Amino acid sequence: MGNDGEGADGADVASPVMAKAPILTPQAEDFPRWYQDVLNKAELAENGPVRGTMVIRPYAYALWERMVRELDDRIKATGAENAYFPLFIPESYLKREAEHVEGFSPELAVVTVAGGKELEEPIVVRPTSETVIGEYLAKWVQSYRDLPLLLNQWANVVRWELRPRIFLRTSEFLWQEGHTAHATREDAAAYAELILRDAYAALMVDVLAIPTYIGRKIVEERFAGAINTITCEAMMRDGKALQMGTSHELGQNFARAFDIDYSDADGNQQLCWTTSWGASTRMMGGLIMTHGDDRGLRIPPRAAEIQAVIVVVRDEDGSVTPAARQLQADLAAAGVRARVDDKVSVGFGRRATDWELKGVPVRIEVGPRDLAEGKVIVARRDNGEKETMLLAQTPARVGSLMEEIQSAMLAAATADRDARTIDVDTIEDAIEASADGFARIRWGAVEGAGIGRLAQEAISVRCLQTTDGDIPDNDSDPDLIALVGRSY
Amino acid sequence: MGNDGEGADGADVASPVMAKAPILTPQAEDFPRWYQDVLNKAELAENGPVRGTMVIRPYAYALWERMVRELDDRIKATGAENAYFPLFIPESYLKREAEHVEGFSPELAVVTVAGGKELEEPIVVRPTSETVIGEYLAKWVQSYRDLPLLLNQWANVVRWELRPRIFLRTSEFLWQEGHTAHATREDAAAYAELILRDAYAALMVDVLAIPTYIGRKIVEERFAGAINTITCEAMMRDGKALQMGTSHELGQNFARAFDIDYSDADGNQQLCWTTSWGASTRMMGGLIMTHGDDRGLRIPPRAAEIQAVIVVVRDEDGSVTPAARQLQADLAAAGVRARVDDKVSVGFGRRATDWELKGVPVRIEVGPRDLAEGKVIVARRDNGEKETMLLAQTPARVGSLMEEIQSAMLAAATADRDARTIDVDTIEDAIEASADGFARIRWGAVEGAGIGRLAQEAISVRCLQTTDGDIPDNDSDPDLIALVGRSY
Repeated sequence: MGNDGEGADGADVASPVMAKAPILTPQAEDFPRWYQDVLNKAELAENGPVRGTMVIRPYAYALWERMVRELDDRIKATGAENAYFPLFIPESYLKREAEHVEGFSPELAVVTVAGGKELEEPIVVRPTSETVIGEYLAKWVQSYRDLPLLLNQWANVVRWELRPRIFLRTSEFLWQEGHTAHATREDAAAYAELILRDAYAALMVDVLAIPTYIGRKIVEERFAGAINTITCEAMMRDGKALQMGTSHELGQNFARAFDIDYSDADGNQQLCWTTSWGASTRMMGGLIMTHGDDRGLRIPPRAAEIQAVIVVVRDEDGSVTPAARQLQADLAAAGVRARVDDKVSVGFGRRATDWELKGVPVRIEVGPRDLAEGKVIVARRDNGEKETMLLAQTPARVGSLMEEIQSAMLAAATADRDARTIDVDTIEDAIEASADGFARIRWGAVEGAGIGRLAQEAISVRCLQTTDGDIPDNDSDPDLIALVGRSY
Repeated sequence: MGNDGEGADGADVASPVMAKAPILTPQAEDFPRWYQDVLNKAELAENGPVRGTMVIRPYAYALWERMVRELDDRIKATGAENAYFPLFIPESYLKREAEHVEGFSPELAVVTVAGGKELEEPIVVRPTSETVIGEYLAKWVQSYRDLPLLLNQWANVVRWELRPRIFLRTSEFLWQEGHTAHATREDAAAYAELILRDAYAALMVDVLAIPTYIGRKIVEERFAGAINTITCEAMMRDGKALQMGTSHELGQNFARAFDIDYSDADGNQQLCWTTSWGASTRMMGGLIMTHGDDRGLRIPPRAAEIQAVIVVVRDEDGSVTPAARQLQADLAAAGVRARVDDKVSVGFGRRATDWELKGVPVRIEVGPRDLAEGKVIVARRDNGEKETMLLAQTPARVGSLMEEIQSAMLAAATADRDARTIDVDTIEDAIEASADGFARIRWGAVEGAGIGRLAQEAISVRCLQTTDGDIPDNDSDPDLIALVGRSY
């Protein structure tokens, strides 16, 4: 604990914890207000001028860009290729879908005027692209040699929201949507699961440090038109579930609606089996609500655009800032994304508080007296620990700290989640447990009337799991585990 | 010239040049049809179901992703940060803009129904985001310390097109739009120019191998509301100009419309000076039409997602494909992005033609007999040259070929452009020269009546340049050079 260093450069005098009244509503007092406060104070996002839309500010957008890059790499590793399909979809496509696919009725935004004229056929702003992509898959897939055809697109979509909430439920959001066509049901099922495990769950666990339950949705919670929906479910710090990404087997429903067929090796025409899968800016909400505390965000190092901030405490003789920049270069050489904060005209305490609010994993305090002794102070955001380090050892030490913090954050989030996931035997106990987390209950004890009873309390079955926590291949075995909870 | 190799493995027998009738309309016969043929045959893009929209297929989208990455890096290097603003803009914002900014009237797509209800205020699908970003800049800029504020976003935008053409003019297109606020006119002007030179021109010349003329737009050709527009203009192989990217000084026009002001060091309120700048999927059209020839695309190595394709000629005993994969790994180690084509069920000639059509810079032919001698044949797409190489030397040789090809393509495109850029003295000579390229003419000889005369022939002033080809700081000096030509 670098007390010398702190005292010498006065950093602890202005310590944000000591000096400042809390700038965020405490989580325990009002979690939704805490969330709103973090969005504002950490300059993450704001409401757009049209109801339900959002403006994503640079700090948050950089986090999103990192998620996109990490997820995109994993999606491409499964063999999918990116493409781009239009924002505008003829209304007739949605009608055609509605004839074949029951229950899909997103709240649509409709363009009726374009180029100064009333349109003959209204145009829908895409709520998802199954229909338009289906139309092109039908053209591109001719023979079994064209299969599987694995497409993904990064795009904005629109679903009119009456109760919007930034990142969680917005009228426009950003996402990727994958759409694939396969020769057999088995191949489609295997691919849908590959995406859930190797792309979604891997991103969440390995990069975002968000432990996720993977499982199978019950019929009532499936995507309309799907014959199977599998999901990643995470627990937020208020005990509620957030669905972080889903992958759907669409069977032959969309293939039938859009004539996606192929000639097999014997020359017979066969309908394809299709999948779709998506993850969105909603993951930003998950990142905030899984790790954030009363002092602000906590970003796991692999998800952080800024992994370490080098804060120049003060710099009367102008020698500290160059040392900070040299440290930044040395950290870069050690693989650490660092930034220098040399705004010494603003008090150190205020800047330290701000970097805590923004959740940068490590803060390195560089002041003139410590520097004279060849030392800096390194503060971890995840657990608040401070350590005085020799400047020469800092790049290597901070480099290894990144992995330590990454693991510690995943371990802490997992422990918290596990402690709030309770095994119960009855619906009433499940309701009680759901006040603060998830309940695990035998599916046979829920199926049927239990679902309605839970719904009365705004609780739902998040997914079904096998007893060892894996994805089941059916939803009929009463000995499966139902994971239930409140959700966003 | 690896004649032995070719003969031995039969590759030259099936040589695409010899064996195939031209699959593209020759450029000299009908350039627009050639363009359309390339889009189809190389599987780049198709029309979307709603008029004027486009579907960008995976091969083209990968090229776009590479452009995005390269341009994004350069934009960030200038200090700008990415953010995201909504697709939907209240109609009132556009009206407010119209009151302050003359002449901006893109053909708008308007949402009048959302969530099943008629909207009280119609919503415009963004044609560009000056207005909505202006609104937020006004909130975020308070003091001179907040300046410059440098934002960029990657987004889709919509401008209703009556005569759409894929990549060149579409109702929806993808682009980046930068929006910045500055304390002084000088700072804004310098930044607008920095983007044009270090981001746009650098991308085009260094990555896309497209020589570009940079210069200043005349008043008639400026972006509405701009006090200065500077541009990158490239010459397509049919002699027409394509505007590849523009950067605008908006003066205080938008700041006035959206109240973007700041308090200066003395505490006085001052209006900001703003800029905006954009480059779009139109660059894809530029890439195709600058380098493409009668055999298809030619992609410069730095812009290519696949830099080398390793074509397994045939593989009866199954030993060739593993060797091809090993070569792919060795090429990757040498920094070359390579792909293996082992679809030996399709004839070699057809596959070779297809990779030529797709413009992959280098094709490496691997056949059993050559391989037995430790050799492969390497064919350059840019000039058609073939060379037999020792397999062991191939990774290093192909690695250096990448830079050779990159330079050769830029040199060839520059020579072609320069040969078709003619110095003239009179408007009538400028008209004649514009039939096949650009004319350079003294601005004093064009200004006034000359502009109208050119317009009668569908010719315009692409930009003004100083006599040494740089960007002028005014548009009034009659001794400036006007670069004129037909354009897309």
